[in-house]
Amino acid sequence: MIVIGIDPGLATVGFGVMKAEKEKVTPISYGCIRTSPDKQTPARLLEIFDEITSLFEKYRPEVIAVEKLFFSKNVTNGLSVSEARGVIFLAAQQQNIPIFEYTPNQVKQAITGSGRADKKQVQEMIKRLLGLDEIPEPDDAADGLSIALCHINIMR
Amino acid sequence: MIVIGIDPGLATVGFGVMKAEKEKVTPISYGCIRTSPDKQTPARLLEIFDEITSLFEKYRPEVIAVEKLFFSKNVTNGLSVSEARGVIFLAAQQQNIPIFEYTPNQVKQAITGSGRADKKQVQEMIKRLLGLDEIPEPDDAADGLSIALCHINIMR
Repeated sequence: MIVIGIDPGLATVGFGVMKAEKEKVTPISYGCIRTSPDKQTPARLLEIFDEITSLFEKYRPEVIAVEKLFFSKNVTNGLSVSEARGVIFLAAQQQNIPIFEYTPNQVKQAITGSGRADKKQVQEMIKRLLGLDEIPEPDDAADGLSIALCHINIMR
Repeated sequence: MIVIGIDPGLATVGFGVMKAEKEKVTPISYGCIRTSPDKQTPARLLEIFDEITSLFEKYRPEVIAVEKLFFSKNVTNGLSVSEARGVIFLAAQQQNIPIFEYTPNQVKQAITGSGRADKKQVQEMIKRLLGLDEIPEPDDAADGLSIALCHINIMR
C-alpha cells in the first residue's frame, strides 16, 4: 500500500511517499513543493495543484494523510494554509483518493508515543524507524513522512 | 465587459454575473452553488470547482471579484471558506481570469456610499441600481451581484 503524507502550506507543501508492506515500511520519496512569494496567491495555488496532481499520478497512493490545521495565533497564515488544503483536497478527490487527517499531536503520539514530543524527537524517531542515515530534510519533507507513518501506524 | 462577483463558502457560493457597458450595468445571471452537508469536504470542494469552472466557461468573464475574508469570531467557518476560496482561485487561474478582492466594508461603501450600511440597505440599492422588481434572492446571490457591482463602480 502506498500512502502519501502531506504537510500543507502556501509557500511550502511537504510530502512523504511511503510504501507499507506486512512488517515493513519503506520511504519511496520525500521532498517539498515550494512556491515563490513573488507570485500571487492564485498562481501559487495552481502550481501546488499541478505538482500534487502529478505526484498522485506518479505514485497512485491508496490513501493520503494530511496534517489537520491546528489553530494557533496566526490567523492569516491559517487562512492561506486552508486555501492550499482546498486545492490538495480537490486534487485527491478528482483521483478518488481517500483522505485522512491527523492533528500534530496525533502525529507525535503515533511516532514517539508522546503527544508532547518536540520536532527534533519526532525527526529522530522517523530516521530510526525508517532506517535512514540522516534526518530527512527539509523539515517539511520530514513532516510529510511523519504524517504518512502516523497513518500507517494507526491503521495497524 | 463581463464581471462575475463571488461570495465564497463551503455550503453556499453566491454569484452574480454582470455586464458593464459605458453607462449601463445589466445583471445577466445570479444564483448560488449549494453543496450538501452530508458530503465530505473534498467532495463538496470538487462540486464547487466543477460548477465554478462551468460558470467561467459559459460567461467568459474578463474579471472576477471575490469577497475578501473578514475575520470575525468563527475561526472554523473561516477555514472552510478559505478551502472554498482556494478552489475558486484555482479555477480562475486555470482560465487566466484576473481576480480582485474586496472587503465587505468596501462593497457596502461602493454600493451605498457608507461602509456601515446594513445588509437590507445594500440589497435595496442593488435592486434600485439594477432596475430589478424585487430584491435578488437568496442573500448569497444578492451578495454576488453586490461584489460585481462594487468592482465595476471602483474601476469607473
